[in-house]
Amino acid sequence: MHTLVLIRHGQSEWNLENRFTGWTDVDLTAQGVDEAVSGANLLKEGGFSFDMAHTSLLKRAIRTLWIVLDEMDLMWLPVARTWRLNERHYGALQGLNKAETAEKYGDEQVFVWRRSFDTPPPELDPGDERFPGHDPRYASLSGDELPRCESLKTTIDRTMPYWFETVAPQIREGKRVLIVAHGNSLRGLVKYLDDMSDEAITKLNIPTGLPLVYELDDDLKPIRHYYLGDPEAAAKAAQAVANQAKGG
Amino acid sequence: MHTLVLIRHGQSEWNLENRFTGWTDVDLTAQGVDEAVSGANLLKEGGFSFDMAHTSLLKRAIRTLWIVLDEMDLMWLPVARTWRLNERHYGALQGLNKAETAEKYGDEQVFVWRRSFDTPPPELDPGDERFPGHDPRYASLSGDELPRCESLKTTIDRTMPYWFETVAPQIREGKRVLIVAHGNSLRGLVKYLDDMSDEAITKLNIPTGLPLVYELDDDLKPIRHYYLGDPEAAAKAAQAVANQAKGG
Repeated sequence: MHTLVLIRHGQSEWNLENRFTGWTDVDLTAQGVDEAVSGANLLKEGGFSFDMAHTSLLKRAIRTLWIVLDEMDLMWLPVARTWRLNERHYGALQGLNKAETAEKYGDEQVFVWRRSFDTPPPELDPGDERFPGHDPRYASLSGDELPRCESLKTTIDRTMPYWFETVAPQIREGKRVLIVAHGNSLRGLVKYLDDMSDEAITKLNIPTGLPLVYELDDDLKPIRHYYLGDPEAAAKAAQAVANQAKGG
Repeated sequence: MHTLVLIRHGQSEWNLENRFTGWTDVDLTAQGVDEAVSGANLLKEGGFSFDMAHTSLLKRAIRTLWIVLDEMDLMWLPVARTWRLNERHYGALQGLNKAETAEKYGDEQVFVWRRSFDTPPPELDPGDERFPGHDPRYASLSGDELPRCESLKTTIDRTMPYWFETVAPQIREGKRVLIVAHGNSLRGLVKYLDDMSDEAITKLNIPTGLPLVYELDDDLKPIRHYYLGDPEAAAKAAQAVANQAKGG
């Protein structure tokens, strides 16, 4: 049996400001830091350890990982950072206040942008300073890979090659893997692992900072998954996942 | 021209307690943290940036690197961790107080253990809990690679393959490399780059937290090197290096 742990980063500055964040590189809030520490403590109490960690190129995920590694006394762990685990790119919505955007475009349109599986938000112009082609951390991406906006579908499409090519082979080798990433890149992994429908995955909300443990068989099929932590909170989160997995 | 920056980690808890540290995984002190922040600020003021960072498997170096990456807004930078950049392994002296050790073995013997090029300290028994074979972070090392003690010579011997096989090719590719490591692993790099004698390198004391910049030609031969920072402190450090390079 293999064990894989997923953690969604804690609260960020723009979660707090209610802005579309996407690839904007905002930091954790003090609450976000606390969530990471709590997640680390749950892992320690559960006797977990790891051989390898993966995260995105965004500091709210990287800092969450750093806090977990520090608390678990695993700062020496190899860490791979990849744009493929980044949050969904919110295109021309990035930086806008969600309430103001709803006033401007209507609640229904914003709901579609936020919750549809394959409707992307408005595209960025490549001349826009928010276009990732201007950021040195994405210098190695091809023109086709640099997003001008992403739907949940296209986010998942660019996340999954990293699972197949990098993470899954490590798990098969026997490595205990920790992934610290974002709501939508983690949705991609969960959708694949739990074989969820397009509809169901749009309704899945992974709680922040709560380690999500997958026990996988030798074919990397899930035997079960569960959240660590207070049984009530964990059960609630698990039930929410289960309901959503049913498409309910 | 290529630019390489070396940083020796700041003060650690056992520097403060005057104990032989070696591969013991002690953390930075508050002063060590301040030194890392100051080093980062010097790099920012100097307009430096990086494409790749390398560090050891010991948290005093990793934390120094994390602080530098955080302050420079480069948390996304790829980081490679390797035991080959670890501090010299101090064998059976690890954990002992330096003053007490001098009382027990005599000043002269301790001076030889600390300052000779090729005299190793007393060996650890593999059953000793301080033997690195018991630590999961060294699980990938072969029996021959796991040290029971190291002289400066054997430290350099295991550090340099990492330069030739990993770091130098990256620099040749045009990557701007930052290395955050330890007094003795950095001595190995400096000895090679500046073609210093065995005798001279034993006398070289690299200051902590002060970025040491090498400008390298296309053959990776140093054009010049210098410390960033207060010109007086930097000149003093540079002069000390220069004197020692002469074997004086």
